[in-house]
Amino acid sequence: MLEALKQQVYAANLALPQHNLVTLTWGNVSGVDESRQWIVIKPSGVDYQTLSAEDMVVVNLESGEVVEGRYRPSSDLPTHRYLYRAYPQLGGIVHTHSRHATIWAQAGRNLPAFGTTHADYFYGEIPCTRVMHDAEIRDEYEWQTGAVIVETLQACQHQPEEMPGILVHSHGPFTWGRDPAHAVETAIVLEEIAYMALFSQQLQPTLSAMQPTLLDKHYLRKHGEQAYYGQK
Amino acid sequence: MLEALKQQVYAANLALPQHNLVTLTWGNVSGVDESRQWIVIKPSGVDYQTLSAEDMVVVNLESGEVVEGRYRPSSDLPTHRYLYRAYPQLGGIVHTHSRHATIWAQAGRNLPAFGTTHADYFYGEIPCTRVMHDAEIRDEYEWQTGAVIVETLQACQHQPEEMPGILVHSHGPFTWGRDPAHAVETAIVLEEIAYMALFSQQLQPTLSAMQPTLLDKHYLRKHGEQAYYGQK
Amino acid sequence: MLEALKQQVYAANLALPQHNLVTLTWGNVSGVDESRQWIVIKPSGVDYQTLSAEDMVVVNLESGEVVEGRYRPSSDLPTHRYLYRAYPQLGGIVHTHSRHATIWAQAGRNLPAFGTTHADYFYGEIPCTRVMHDAEIRDEYEWQTGAVIVETLQACQHQPEEMPGILVHSHGPFTWGRDPAHAVETAIVLEEIAYMALFSQQLQPTLSAMQPTLLDKHYLRKHGEQAYYGQK
Amino acid sequence: MLEALKQQVYAANLALPQHNLVTLTWGNVSGVDESRQWIVIKPSGVDYQTLSAEDMVVVNLESGEVVEGRYRPSSDLPTHRYLYRAYPQLGGIVHTHSRHATIWAQAGRNLPAFGTTHADYFYGEIPCTRVMHDAEIRDEYEWQTGAVIVETLQACQHQPEEMPGILVHSHGPFTWGRDPAHAVETAIVLEEIAYMALFSQQLQPTLSAMQPTLLDKHYLRKHGEQAYYGQK
Repeated sequence: MLEALKQQVYAANLALPQHNLVTLTWGNVSGVDESRQWIVIKPSGVDYQTLSAEDMVVVNLESGEVVEGRYRPSSDLPTHRYLYRAYPQLGGIVHTHSRHATIWAQAGRNLPAFGTTHADYFYGEIPCTRVMHDAEIRDEYEWQTGAVIVETLQACQHQPEEMPGILVHSHGPFTWGRDPAHAVETAIVLEEIAYMALFSQQLQPTLSAMQPTLLDKHYLRKHGEQAYYGQK
Repeated sequence: MLEALKQQVYAANLALPQHNLVTLTWGNVSGVDESRQWIVIKPSGVDYQTLSAEDMVVVNLESGEVVEGRYRPSSDLPTHRYLYRAYPQLGGIVHTHSRHATIWAQAGRNLPAFGTTHADYFYGEIPCTRVMHDAEIRDEYEWQTGAVIVETLQACQHQPEEMPGILVHSHGPFTWGRDPAHAVETAIVLEEIAYMALFSQQLQPTLSAMQPTLLDKHYLRKHGEQAYYGQK
Repeated sequence: MLEALKQQVYAANLALPQHNLVTLTWGNVSGVDESRQWIVIKPSGVDYQTLSAEDMVVVNLESGEVVEGRYRPSSDLPTHRYLYRAYPQLGGIVHTHSRHATIWAQAGRNLPAFGTTHADYFYGEIPCTRVMHDAEIRDEYEWQTGAVIVETLQACQHQPEEMPGILVHSHGPFTWGRDPAHAVETAIVLEEIAYMALFSQQLQPTLSAMQPTLLDKHYLRKHGEQAYYGQK
Repeated sequence: MLEALKQQVYAANLALPQHNLVTLTWGNVSGVDESRQWIVIKPSGVDYQTLSAEDMVVVNLESGEVVEGRYRPSSDLPTHRYLYRAYPQLGGIVHTHSRHATIWAQAGRNLPAFGTTHADYFYGEIPCTRVMHDAEIRDEYEWQTGAVIVETLQACQHQPEEMPGILVHSHGPFTWGRDPAHAVETAIVLEEIAYMALFSQQLQPTLSAMQPTLLDKHYLRKHGEQAYYGQK
């Protein structure tokens, strides 16, 4: 079932090591089908070099039950499920431990918008979630990770389209998009801007966020009705 | 039309990902023909892997109108046009978000000449443009970006041959040269010296610019009438 | 003799340059056979590009004598022997000068657990050994290096399974596992977390170790009886 | 003439971009023949991709005159000549602008011995030359660069075998050895230890040089009569 989606999710997973976003078996991408009944997700802890499209696991979005696949799904599945249920506009989710996004997550710091590379994809500062409570970690940890992501996005008053990624405290980034490929693209960008912001701030320790006018200009020339970047 | 120039501009665009100066579809190179009537430029937001020489867009330098090509030109076209009109000696222009040049641009700092690698290509400190006014951003933003580059170059009293690149505040680098290939070469060098200057300054926080005599020696052994570097 | 183990040790050695953990001829991997009589180890100072499985040297674990092989064994052999004798659960040991683990070792600092990437493999802060006494360096240096590693592990009250690597002061990392391949995997992870911890701490100079609950959660979801990461 | 040496020098030059030590046409390697009459050196400013062994230039060591080759020799030739004349034990010299060695050179700082990677190749702190006088820069600059290197080596009381490289202030590294291949190997190591020392010092700002006993141990286990590293 869902062979086309499996192929998309598989290709998106392979793109992670190709763009140096994951080491070993880390990272995972999922996609959701149009009916929003099924999630297709990478199996847990399987080597990228031996992975095939058929290895993708099909899971019931509502119940979390595996409905097809010989492997166990990624242990982060409940986080993906939480996000797809909270945001019906999402079609793909990516989790990595990419080096520089993780550096910000480990430092527990929001990633400020310091330049147009950031503004082309994220409409403002990328938030870092709060430290999780012990009870949240001990019980249904991966599900609660989804909950704290949604709590954080709501607090910064952004829709997930405008803020297509987040830093999970002491952990690493999650990104999302309308399909798995766009979620991967955002993961690539997040890693790039996390690198640049780290050293821009070292170079100018008092650096503050870019002008709101410039943020608007770049975000809106690529997104929304007035967009004029790219092809029609 | 302009098949040879399209080939040059195409090759110069491809050199950007090959030298790790761009991610995804970022960056663009243009060239201008000998009559200075036409600009050939990369299309906006097209994947480097599928790009071909025929995809390059031909634009009227004066009016900005597309005269050949199935794609829309790079959204940064007006910046390129402004620079070609201001400086008739320019034959190629490159824009990237290369990591370390962008780090300096985001920090809003001029890039000091700390060593002979810098002095071999740039005759002094590389300026960073001022923050743009809101009106400049809101109205004809890309054209005004060209204007602020020229304003900055004039203030530092360098001809564009002696200062073949600049940092645009909160954005990234532009470089130029007598043709697209030389503009790309300068983009490579700018990224390299931006990296080294960042960490030289961390290693020696009170570091000041190199001796003027050494700057002169290296710049002039490669450029101008007394040059003796390279082959005749 | 021990052809299968030689092949494993050879493959594990080759994995070091493939994962950018070693430069030139640096680094070495060994494995021990099931009877724990023999160590198979990389020869000293031989180029990785010309290395073959037959070049691996077979050594008596107890006496350190070479029993097969045309080359001299790695000069770090006594360190490996010391560790295998102290810890019968170890089947493979890796030594590298990988850049970021070595940066921490040279700084003489323990590597704190700042995030889940660390917690997935190491059950707490990774210790750095003390400065060695002059007498230890002058006499049986490589053997004494093993001794100081064991002394340090004992002081931090971890079994080598829970703390599968260490930083040797002014030198570099050693990692270990149940076989050579797992010791290499840990060397890859140690390099990755050493990189991230370096810059997380720069970004947040007052950063302290992650919550113990989160450390437990991630370590124990991958190791021990309650593990649920990966496949059965 | 000197075809075997040309081949060696050519191969050593190609090793520079292969090890990411040079960008564009930067960097150069030379070798000297056994009679010490002739230097073979890379031509100036020629692309590594089109370079061939026949392009190497043969120069009279004493007079500096080109005796064979269609290209002009590297503009750094006088520095190489100065060093070969001062030190008859040298058979190969390398100059690069490798990133991290250059970072230390631009900062004008000696590179301290912080660990065994350093001690395996350099018998102590690697000196950075003084700022050159304006007269030295204006007149016979490249020759005077050789002179200031020798002056600096003599001041630190090391023979060039024990200190097989140096940092030239505001410029970059030179390394040397008994033949071109060994000089390249040292250039690779210098870049590696320059990287690690930069960040070890950031991690531990009060870091001082490693113990002299450990420096001796590592340097002398690889060099001199008591060496036991590598094969006989």
